[in-house]
Formats: sequence, structure tokens, C-alpha cells
Amino acid sequence: MHVAGTPYRTIWPSDTDQAVIKIIDQRHLPHRFVIEELRTVNEVCAAIREMHVRGAGLIGATAGFGMYLAARTAPDQDFAAFMQQAADDLVQTRPTAGNLAWAVKRQLTAIAQENTLEKKRARAFDVAREIADEDAEFCRRIGEHGKEIIAELSRKKNGAPVNILTHCNAGWLAFVDYGSATAPIYAAHAEGIKVHVWVDETRPWLQGAKLTAWELKEEGVDHTLIADNTGGHLMQHGLVDMVIVGTDRTTRCGDVANKIGTYLKALAAHDNQVPFYVALPSSTFDWTIRDGLTEIPIEQRSGEEITHIRGLSEAAEMATIGIAPPDTATANYGFDVTPARLITGLITERGVMAAHEEDILRLYPEHR
Amino acid sequence: MHVAGTPYRTIWPSDTDQAVIKIIDQRHLPHRFVIEELRTVNEVCAAIREMHVRGAGLIGATAGFGMYLAARTAPDQDFAAFMQQAADDLVQTRPTAGNLAWAVKRQLTAIAQENTLEKKRARAFDVAREIADEDAEFCRRIGEHGKEIIAELSRKKNGAPVNILTHCNAGWLAFVDYGSATAPIYAAHAEGIKVHVWVDETRPWLQGAKLTAWELKEEGVDHTLIADNTGGHLMQHGLVDMVIVGTDRTTRCGDVANKIGTYLKALAAHDNQVPFYVALPSSTFDWTIRDGLTEIPIEQRSGEEITHIRGLSEAAEMATIGIAPPDTATANYGFDVTPARLITGLITERGVMAAHEEDILRLYPEHR
Repeated sequence: MHVAGTPYRTIWPSDTDQAVIKIIDQRHLPHRFVIEELRTVNEVCAAIREMHVRGAGLIGATAGFGMYLAARTAPDQDFAAFMQQAADDLVQTRPTAGNLAWAVKRQLTAIAQENTLEKKRARAFDVAREIADEDAEFCRRIGEHGKEIIAELSRKKNGAPVNILTHCNAGWLAFVDYGSATAPIYAAHAEGIKVHVWVDETRPWLQGAKLTAWELKEEGVDHTLIADNTGGHLMQHGLVDMVIVGTDRTTRCGDVANKIGTYLKALAAHDNQVPFYVALPSSTFDWTIRDGLTEIPIEQRSGEEITHIRGLSEAAEMATIGIAPPDTATANYGFDVTPARLITGLITERGVMAAHEEDILRLYPEHR
Repeated sequence: MHVAGTPYRTIWPSDTDQAVIKIIDQRHLPHRFVIEELRTVNEVCAAIREMHVRGAGLIGATAGFGMYLAARTAPDQDFAAFMQQAADDLVQTRPTAGNLAWAVKRQLTAIAQENTLEKKRARAFDVAREIADEDAEFCRRIGEHGKEIIAELSRKKNGAPVNILTHCNAGWLAFVDYGSATAPIYAAHAEGIKVHVWVDETRPWLQGAKLTAWELKEEGVDHTLIADNTGGHLMQHGLVDMVIVGTDRTTRCGDVANKIGTYLKALAAHDNQVPFYVALPSSTFDWTIRDGLTEIPIEQRSGEEITHIRGLSEAAEMATIGIAPPDTATANYGFDVTPARLITGLITERGVMAAHEEDILRLYPEHR
């Protein structure tokens, strides 16, 4: 998508130096747009661990390129051991990120199929690009399928702006391009369908205020930033036509684990007959589980994210402020589970389906 | 209630100088405990307007003392005109605060009944104290009635801590003493019933993080601060035994307008069979309206509360940081309406009742 009018992905190989992979260092957004150059797998590990990059799709793609940099810099005499260590290090950076382990394994398998170091290194580069391209392509297709839902609402409103509420950042910054929840919005906008996005700021980490608002601004999509508390009121007053969110993990019955607070918006949508959609590449399906509430473990994060907030000071420097009494006890759950009964539909790269096992398997028969 | 072990109200006349009314300047909480002295009605107006004091009960009590200071400083030859101007100025400070206009009118009526300036001034002091004492007494009674609900839950849990979720600050800082939502909690705690409070931080203004967490800490009540997004997850996992919130305006059918986000918690409580109570002095009833959603206008506030957050810098100074891209559009609704159908009961100074016109009128027959 666009930054100051120039198209970007979130990760790409330098076109002048094969030793360099470039990323957007997202810690500085929305205040500064910083491109970082990565040259070693250690630098890639640090970028993932310290959240220069985040989001399921992007973490996977970054790990893919991390394995390429590892292959490139591995000593000839110790190649296999070096690659295994790189794989272990990458997987350790965010142990619960499913896409990360998947991308690393895909690289190890591909590299093992080649019989010279030269071919292994070339293959690692190809596979890294494949992983990134596939991620972008899946999101593009999600956009195409989801766009039809927005177009239909637009027709019902005789072309008046379709008001879409989203939570957290399931945008292109969380993937390689397009995003999941944002892909239908960008696709509709590109076709001239009028849309307006209500952006939940998404405490505690403020991904909505910091990332989604920035994305939409750079892409020229009309949007309004709100506190997470606001969505229910908007829906009660007919100001939301649909909700689209992402998901970090999806059961085969259609329960989704997404950023904490998603469940509350799903309840409000249900109470006000507002369609509630979840957009996802099928890689977020966990085909081994059915019941999100009992089977998806919920990560707990540092309490400092609750008691302290980072932003831009009046002197235009990054600063952290405290908002609570010293030593206040906190609980910081990263995700909650929205049960399938509250979800109108899932939008995947293969199309739109009900959040119901039978309908999911209609489009993914290989998982019957 | 207590601050560092010493009992305080939120407003009180100096016991050494009749010219002085003292308040806690709440803008500095939780970082500093600042007592401010007010000597003129203009200083009182500024304290209300600039939110040194806030909360329905406290605003009313402050206006009562403001009228006393006005009477004290009014020139003899121009007393009536001065008092009318003082009344107009006070009502203008927060035009939607019902208690404010009510307290000012009560003072004007009382003063008009006296026939000398000396008696008018003495009466203004008495009425100001009456208003404050009544506010405290009503909250104390809410505590007694609500305590029974907590005690019953405690019995059901065989004395294990009762987990209570609250939103915003309906604490003693919002009234003269005890609070509304917090009164049952303090009363239960004082009787040795084990309670634990989940404190919603309450974006955008963070009344939960800044005020409720501070109150509970000073009173020694066990509590945990959470992002507003968290309550649904907690309820899904059985970690909330009841919700208690306040209300700014209540219809005769039991709809309540409270801090934005209350409705989302009521939906989650309903979905998980968690009892949802609203605590209120009966002064928040608007007996002229039935339907909260269509009849209660919702105040919109400055977008800066969304894009900027105030807190304590790493240098221990008050500082403001920006969290969104520059010039991001915002919507900042102050309240939302929770329909009576989602409310288990109302706790008032006269007892506990269903959120239903017939049951409300059972305890308030004078409004039939």
C-alpha cells in the first residue's frame, strides 16, 4: 500500500544489495517512518522479538527472509548446524506465533531438497519471496471477496458512505501487503465505493491509534479514531454498517481469538443487528480444535502496557508516561475469544463462509 | 474515606477560617494529593469548569458552597443582583450537570426566605452543609443496601473474594463521601467481607486508572487495573461475580446513561449471566423520561482527549503525549445508554429494585 504516495510492502529485499532485507520499523509509527536494513539472522530475530515487525503474516514473512539471510551468511563448512541454530533462534522469538514456525519449517524443508550450497542459498531466497508473495496474494483475494459485501451495503445505502468499524490493526502493516480486515476496505476504496472507518484505538498497545489510523491516512481512506468504549454507542445509533476484524487463531467451528476487546464489539454488533465479519488467511485456522474458549490459551503480557503509555511528547520526542498509582496491580490479557454464534461470516482467500464447521469445510474440504 | 490513613471528604469548610472552602484538586491524582482553598464564587466556577472537582454529587455540593461564598462576599447594597449573577455563572460551568442547577436553585430559594443579610448568609452556609451531608448520607445508605448483595455472593463463594468489576469513577471522589458504585464495596470491606475489584481504566479520560485505583489503594481494597477491552474475557472465564457502575441520568423505566463503554460491559454481563447493578442516589432519576436511547442527549467532548494522554513523565512531571497521527479525526462521546433489560438491579438510598418502572415507583411512590 502507499506511504506518502509511494507503494510499499512491509518487507522486501533490497534491489541493489542481495545482502540486505528491508523492513518498516513499526515501533516509530505513526510519528516517524523508519526503514531498517537487516543483514543477519540475529538482526531478524531482534526485529521480531522487539516488535519492529508484528502481525501474523508479517512475522512469517520476516522469518522466511531471516532463513535466507542465515543461509547467505552460514559458513560453508558448518552450513547445516548453522541453519538449524538459526531456525531454533527464530522460533524462540515469538513462541506462540504459528506462522513463524511454519515459515521456518518450510525453509528448512526446501533447503534440504537442494544438493549444493549454492543451490540451497538460491532456494532460500526464492522461498522467502514465495512466502511473502503468497501472503500478499492471499490478502489481495480476501480484499476481492470482502469488497462484494461492502459493495452490497453501499448499494443498499444508495452510495452513501459505508461505515465500517475495526479493532486493532489487521492492516497491511500486520501482513506483507493489503492486510486482512483492511483488504476489503482498500479494495472497495480503490473501486470508488465510499467507505468510512471507525478505528478503535485498541488499548493497551494502541495499534488502532498508532497503526490503523496511519495506514488509512496514507491510503486516503476516510476514518475516525475512537476510544474502545465507543463502538456500542455508535451501533445503538445506526452509525455502523458492518464490523470487520482479523483473527490470530480460528477453530474449525469458527470461534476466533483476536485482540482483547473484539468479543465486546461482537456482542454489540449482535445486539444491534450489525453484520460482524472476520477476515483471515486460512493459515490462521487451527484445524485441531473446535472450542475457542476452552482450547485457545490466552497470552498475558506485561502490566507496564497498562500503567504506562508511549507516545510523542510536546517536544516531539518519544516519551513514556505513567497513568496509574505506583505499583498498581494489573491484568493484561492479549486476546479474547469471540464465539462463532456472534460472527456473521468469515472472509478468507477462498471466499466468504458462515462461521460454522460445515460451511468452513465446504471451502476447505481437504480438512474434512 | 481515607487518604494515607486520614479520613477526608471531597469538599469541606475550613474549621479555622469561615472564608475558606477546601477541595481536593483531582486533576493531580493519582500522582499528587493537592488540597485547594476556594474563597470566591469565581474560584468555585473555575474549579468546576476546569474539573478540579467532577462527578454529579460533588459538583452539586461544590455549587452549594459556591453560593455560600457568593453570599459571604456579596456587597450589602447589591446583594440580590450579585447572588443572581453567581447563580447564573455557576450553572454555566457545566450546563448538563443536573445536580448543579438543583443545588443553586435550592440555595436561591432558601436565601429568599430569610429577611436580613446576616440571616441570608448564615442560611447559605447551613444549606451548603446540608447539601453535602445529604449527599454523603445517601451514598452511605447505598452502601448499606448494596453490601447485602455482596454479602450474599460471599456466602455463595464460602467467603472467597467476591470479584466486582466497575467502570469509570463512581467513587467517593465523584460525591462528597463513599461514592455510589464504590459505597457497597467500601461497606463490605469495612465488615471484613473479602472483595477484589476489577478497575476499568476508562478511556479516554482514564478516571478508573487515575481515580478509582487511587481510592481503592488508599482504602486498602484489593484491586486490579485493566484495559476497558478486558472485562468480557474475564466474564467468559468466571472471573467476575458482579458488576457495579454509577449513572449520570436514569429514566423512570430504568435505562441509565453512564460513562461511555458501560453498555459494552452490560452486554458481556448479560451474555455470561453476571449480575449487573447500577448504584445511584435518586437525584439522578429524570422522572420526565422513559426511553434513554432516544431521550437522553449524549455530550460530545474534545478530540484531544482521544489523541493525547496526560500522565507522569519519567522525570516525574505532568506531561502530555500524542498517540495518533497529526490531525486525525476523532469522535468522543462522553456517555452511552444501557437499556434496563440488561440491568439486574438499581441500588439507591431507599433500597434495591429492578430496573423497571413499576418496581422503581414502588420505592418512589411520590413520582407515580
